[in-house]
Formats: sequence, C-alpha cells, structure tokens
Amino acid sequence: MNFKDMKVQIISIGNELLIGDTINTNASWLGAYMTSLGFEVTEVHTISDKIELIKSTLSRSMSDSDMVLCTGGLGPTHDDITKAAVAELFGVNLRTDKRVLDYIKKLFETRNIPFSKSNSGQAEVPENCEVLFNKMGTAPGMWFHEEDCYLACMPGVPYEMKYLMENHISKKIQKAFGDIGFLHSRYLKTVGIGESTLSDNIIGDVSSHFENGVSLAYLPMPGGVTLRLNGMGKTLSEAEKSVNILAEYIYSKAGKYIIGEGKELTISEALGKILIQQNKTIATAESCTGGMIANELTNIAGSSAYVMGGIVSYANSVKVDQLGVSEKDLENFGAVSKVVALQMAKGVAKKLDTDIGISTTGIAGPDGGTIEKPVGTFWMGFWSKDEHFAIKALFTKDRLLNKERSSRTTLEMARRVLLNIDEMPYNLEKEYI
Amino acid sequence: MNFKDMKVQIISIGNELLIGDTINTNASWLGAYMTSLGFEVTEVHTISDKIELIKSTLSRSMSDSDMVLCTGGLGPTHDDITKAAVAELFGVNLRTDKRVLDYIKKLFETRNIPFSKSNSGQAEVPENCEVLFNKMGTAPGMWFHEEDCYLACMPGVPYEMKYLMENHISKKIQKAFGDIGFLHSRYLKTVGIGESTLSDNIIGDVSSHFENGVSLAYLPMPGGVTLRLNGMGKTLSEAEKSVNILAEYIYSKAGKYIIGEGKELTISEALGKILIQQNKTIATAESCTGGMIANELTNIAGSSAYVMGGIVSYANSVKVDQLGVSEKDLENFGAVSKVVALQMAKGVAKKLDTDIGISTTGIAGPDGGTIEKPVGTFWMGFWSKDEHFAIKALFTKDRLLNKERSSRTTLEMARRVLLNIDEMPYNLEKEYI
Repeated sequence: MNFKDMKVQIISIGNELLIGDTINTNASWLGAYMTSLGFEVTEVHTISDKIELIKSTLSRSMSDSDMVLCTGGLGPTHDDITKAAVAELFGVNLRTDKRVLDYIKKLFETRNIPFSKSNSGQAEVPENCEVLFNKMGTAPGMWFHEEDCYLACMPGVPYEMKYLMENHISKKIQKAFGDIGFLHSRYLKTVGIGESTLSDNIIGDVSSHFENGVSLAYLPMPGGVTLRLNGMGKTLSEAEKSVNILAEYIYSKAGKYIIGEGKELTISEALGKILIQQNKTIATAESCTGGMIANELTNIAGSSAYVMGGIVSYANSVKVDQLGVSEKDLENFGAVSKVVALQMAKGVAKKLDTDIGISTTGIAGPDGGTIEKPVGTFWMGFWSKDEHFAIKALFTKDRLLNKERSSRTTLEMARRVLLNIDEMPYNLEKEYI
Repeated sequence: MNFKDMKVQIISIGNELLIGDTINTNASWLGAYMTSLGFEVTEVHTISDKIELIKSTLSRSMSDSDMVLCTGGLGPTHDDITKAAVAELFGVNLRTDKRVLDYIKKLFETRNIPFSKSNSGQAEVPENCEVLFNKMGTAPGMWFHEEDCYLACMPGVPYEMKYLMENHISKKIQKAFGDIGFLHSRYLKTVGIGESTLSDNIIGDVSSHFENGVSLAYLPMPGGVTLRLNGMGKTLSEAEKSVNILAEYIYSKAGKYIIGEGKELTISEALGKILIQQNKTIATAESCTGGMIANELTNIAGSSAYVMGGIVSYANSVKVDQLGVSEKDLENFGAVSKVVALQMAKGVAKKLDTDIGISTTGIAGPDGGTIEKPVGTFWMGFWSKDEHFAIKALFTKDRLLNKERSSRTTLEMARRVLLNIDEMPYNLEKEYI
C-alpha cells in the first residue's frame, strides 16, 4: 500500500474554537502527526456543537477520505453531542461500557466527589465502536470502521487527545493500513547561524539522501534554526539508519553550530550541561538585557550547581560601584563600548568568584540611538582566566527582540569558547583589549 | 435587521496549515472579530491549495451563510490560485487593476528590485470584485456580492489580513448589513486575585447591566484575570456609555485589584508608571526568580528612568557578600525564610541606593523541597524607608510557573504598597521583623 494516496480529514468540534476563545492547536498537531505518517491532510473542519452539522460534516468527510479524526464534544458539559451525532449517523444505539464506568466511578471515589447520572453518561458509547481507553480523563476515545473509512473520535483536551493518538490510534492505524512503515525523527538545534548560510554554504545539497526516504527541514525558531530529519522505513531500525546517516553527514559539516538535539532544547540548557561537565561556574553582568540571561540560565532545573548569580547594572553608577567599571572609560567610550563590556565580564567574575563572566551592554531601543551607535548596537563580553574578549553586533530596532538576540548570542558565545570553537556566533569578530 | 441571525463562515487556504507547520491563528482572530460584531461563526474550513476544492468549499459556504471570509492563496508563490478559483466559480475573467499595478511597481522601484511578469500578476483581480487596497503588502483584498452572500478574500499574512479587516472590510460590513451597530470594548486587568473570588465575592452579579447590550467576560491569563467589557450600541457613544457605566461599577467594587486597562498591559508596565509618577527608583534582589523580575521590569521602554539594577543572588555566598545577608541567619533560618527575604530587599536598596528594594527567595523545584518547606514555598520582601516586610506564598510544583508567579506577586506587592493599598496580592499576610 502506497501511503502517498492515503487521505485524512480532521474535524474539530466546539464553539470556543469558532468564536476565537481557543486557538485550534489540536488540528495543527494532528496535521503534523498524520503528515509524518505519510497521510495527506486535505481538509480541517471546525464546526459548532450542532448535531445536524456534525452529522453532515462527518458524512461528507468520510466519503471523501480514508480516515477521519474528530476531536471535541465528548465532555459532560457538551451533552455528549458528538456521540449522539455519530450514533444517529450510523443508525446505532448507545451502550454503557462497563470498564469505563468502573474507572470513572473509582476516579470520583478517590477524589471524594459524589457520582451523578450525568457522569455515568461519560461511559456511554455507540454500539459499533471500539473503545479506546483514556487514562488521562473520563471521556473514552472511539474507533469506527464504516463504509470503507476509519473514524477516530477523541476528547478536545489536548493532552488527552495526544495520549490517545500516541498510545492507541497510532496502533490502530498501523493495523488498519497494514504496512504503514515507521517514522523516526531527530531534531538538531543550531544557534548563531542564519538559515540561508547554513543551508547554502555549510550543509549544501543533501538531496541524494532523500532517496532513502529521509527528509530534511530547516525550521527557523526564535532560538535558532532547528534541523528536522524525518525518516520512514519498513522497520524502525531501517528508518533510524537512514536518518542517522544523514545526521552524521550534517554533523560533519555543521557540527560546531549544533548545540544538541531535541525540539525543546535551549541554549541555556546546552551551556549548563557543558558547565557541569567541565565543573565550571558562571556569573552574568547585564545592562541592556536587564536580567534576561540570568533568567534563562536559571530556568534550567539544577542550574544552582553552576550559576552563582549576576548583577543587573542598568544604571552607570551600578556598573561602577558593583562591577568596578572605570568611570573614566564610561565617560570616554560610553556605556555601550568594548571596554565597558570587557570590564563588566571580568568584574562580575571577580566579584562573584566564578570561572566565567559574561556581559551585555547595548541600546535596546526604541530610543537612545545615535548615528554612531544606532538602536540595536550591542557589545557582549566574555572573561575566563584563559580568555578575555568582546564581540559587537547590530541587531534590530525592536526592544524585546534585541534583548532576546543578545541574550542568546552571549550564551552561545560562552558555549563556543568552552568547546574551543573559535568561530563566534554569526561570525562576529572577537575583539581584545 | 437582527444580527443574531447573521451567519458567517471562514475559509483558510494553505498547505502549511494542514500539515501543522503554521497554527491557524487567523481563523481565531476572525472568529473573535466577527463574533464581536454580532455574527454567528458556524464553520471554519481549512483546505489545501487545490482549485476544485476551493471552488466547492466556497460554493457550499456561500449558500449556507450571509458572509464568507477567505484568507490565503493570494501570494505570487501560490500561483494566485484563489483568484483563479473565484473567477471560475463566478464565471468571470481576471482584469488588471491599474492602481494596484502602479503601487506594486513603485514599491519594487523603491526597494531596487527588478519587476517581473509574475509580480504584475499580483495586480490581477476577478472582474466582478471591488478591490480593497492593501497598503501593508502587494496582494489586494477583494470584495464580492454574489447570490445573496458577501465574500471577502484576503492574503494569509496575519497583519495584512487584520489591516484589511479593520480598515476596509469592517466598513463594507457596515454598509452591506445596514444598521450593524457599534462595538466598544474595555479591558480591565487585575493581578493578585483569583477569578472566582473576584467574580463571586468582589464584583458579584452584574446581569442587570446586560440589558443595555453590555457583556462582561472573565479571561484568566498568565498575568492575572482580565475583565473584558463589550458593549453594542446604535452609535459609538451609546456603546461607550453602557460600557462605561459597568466599568465604573466594577472600579467601585474591585478598583484596588485593577492595575490598568488594555489587553497587553503588564504588571511591570503598571508599576513603572507609578514609579515615574512618584519619582522613585527600584532595585531587585532575586534568588529563586533568577533575574526574571529585573527582566520583566526592563522589558518596558524607558525603564532606565527608575530601574537602577539588581543582584541575582543564586548562591548563598552572593547573598552574604553582595547583599549583606547575615551568615548566621542563613544558617539558622535557611535561605528560604522571612529574615533572609527582608535582608535581601533592604540590602539591594542600600547597595544600589534606591528608594525601593524587592526580593524573592524560594524553592522553585523540581528538587530541593522538604516537609517544612515544600517545592513552591516562596518569601517575597519589600523595603522602603517607610515600610519593611515580607509575604509568604505556596505556589505550585512547576519550576517555571513558580518563577512566573512569584515574580508577578512581588511586582504587584510593590504596586499596592506604592498606592497605599493595604491588602497584599492573594490576601497574603504582611510579616515584619
């Protein structure tokens, strides 16, 4: 069976989606999930809680595709209208599922909540469905096979929906569509390099790998460019093998830009791991970023092992009094200067007695720019007993974006120094005293 | 004309929406917008860039509703497939709109980009449409009236779509549907009080106001509960009047919890305004929040007028050396204690020479909790020459949520002190030395 021909439609039920109170993230997640399994997602229908509309949409979608995924309308507050609509559509009755009923009763018992009739309705399902047990909530999932189409109904609560997809429906799909193949994904995160430089100059053309069922996507995200490697195979190890060959090639070309793997990996987490491995401590001296770097570093559980602390020196007096920046240099070169960035990084490391000091000083905006130093001008400093330098960048006109970019660039600068990578983020030049 | 009977459907065109690369935020925004105008949003269709599918979806939606809003598929990279589909559906040809063509040519000239034939295609529109001039991009909006239904086509780029809705289509709707009425909204932001306490105990039943066409919604957001007051009237001043009467009533009941107005207002912005008004400066001493408070404060443009800086004292040695916390007290009471929070707040204000010092020390988690001081235990300190106290809270088990909540609570604590409001956020008790 060729999966390129498999069509799926998604139906999202709920007024909250139509009036804009809730953004339909379920449909995006399901779209990505089904695409990764090789299905073509042709339509998403978001509809209100009306029985006739649910029936007609279900009926049309099922006749136009091989599979339909339906979310929402299963909670007790929705009067179980999805189940009633499905039962009417298929001309069957509802039955009470004993396992689900017992489970819900027990759940209420544990939580000391009285069990009412409307709660027992949660255990009712159309006669012709296969129940998909939902241990994340009270509404079960349902699986139907009617008129040459498969239908899965799930609650609209995102984590319940995802649980059912990943644990039950994925298996049902495997079974229903036979040799569906296996998907293996790796997410390689890069920081400090632009998407086009990375794709055109560093990695180059890798289309020869695509013959093995592998795909490579460049996903620009706020923290950097993530490389998504997807591989499909008849077995999991086949899928892994082709992905790993491409990953190895990418590492050989772009290894120094890759901070690690995983969709959610951040530069502060990657840097933290290195600091632990090297048994080193760090402190921050922040002007323009105003505490953002310290905040990012301490978002990581266990960061107290290597973050001693930091000084937010927003006012020049704090730079002088707390970090030992020279008043004369401040006057001569200005707060946004190489010499001040250097003194801040060294000052905080000395003061807080750490192995490494990092610093930022810049013009975040919207005001404060000059012709010589426009909004977006940033100096970022590094100090350790082995190295002491600063890098200069011109970011954007947007205050928050500037804070974010200089924070990330500073953290990536530290990561590269610790790993003896000479090239700085965005190829910025190291400047010494 | 009664607007309760007006039905609208939304069609979002684009593969990126179906495969989950882009979340359909346009549909949510449009749903909220049309709901606020009194329309019933019955269906949202997200479909791929296929001409037959676009035609059949358009045709069905138009016959089922009074108005259809369509986004996407207008860019030059999409081969203008939406325009071709619409022209085919209505049996008309495309014509070149001179004003749009001149505008695009000029745009390219200014940017020094060569003008190609595919670019001139952007100026082509179906003969039967009224062009909605789009000064935010190159693809114009289009307005149709066919078979008793209105159709608006817009680009999928969110800010272009919003521009067209707010500046052109809103007026077209007014004209098309006659006495549509006017909507006036106010967003009152509260911090430091739970939704149910606010609605049940403080504000109470306001349903008598609803007769004047006003509605009140409690919107729980990460930063607190926002009250949305919507009013509809035959004239704008009528809509404003009924909203203002309800707002006045809410201020009389819940004024001290309201930090200001506007959807995007943050507690750090509200506090900043007060500090400027009172000509006072502030410094932060952060342990568990790790720089988050300083970061929030400095996210506000112009904050350098009142934020002198801060000290992130993650390690105890930094608390002692930089903030003057007593080593003995640290030993006797632990870092997460009233006395340490008090000393941190005072210490940073003295050291950075500010009018106000605020501090946090707590167990952010996931580890580090004890039976006496479980994860989520936080002390937040305040110092000024007039007052010196700390408040204690038990937040959650989640590290990032804990950082966020204690940051917000600390900022709100400071706001209330500055405004002489004795009640602390979440009714926490002030504890003195």
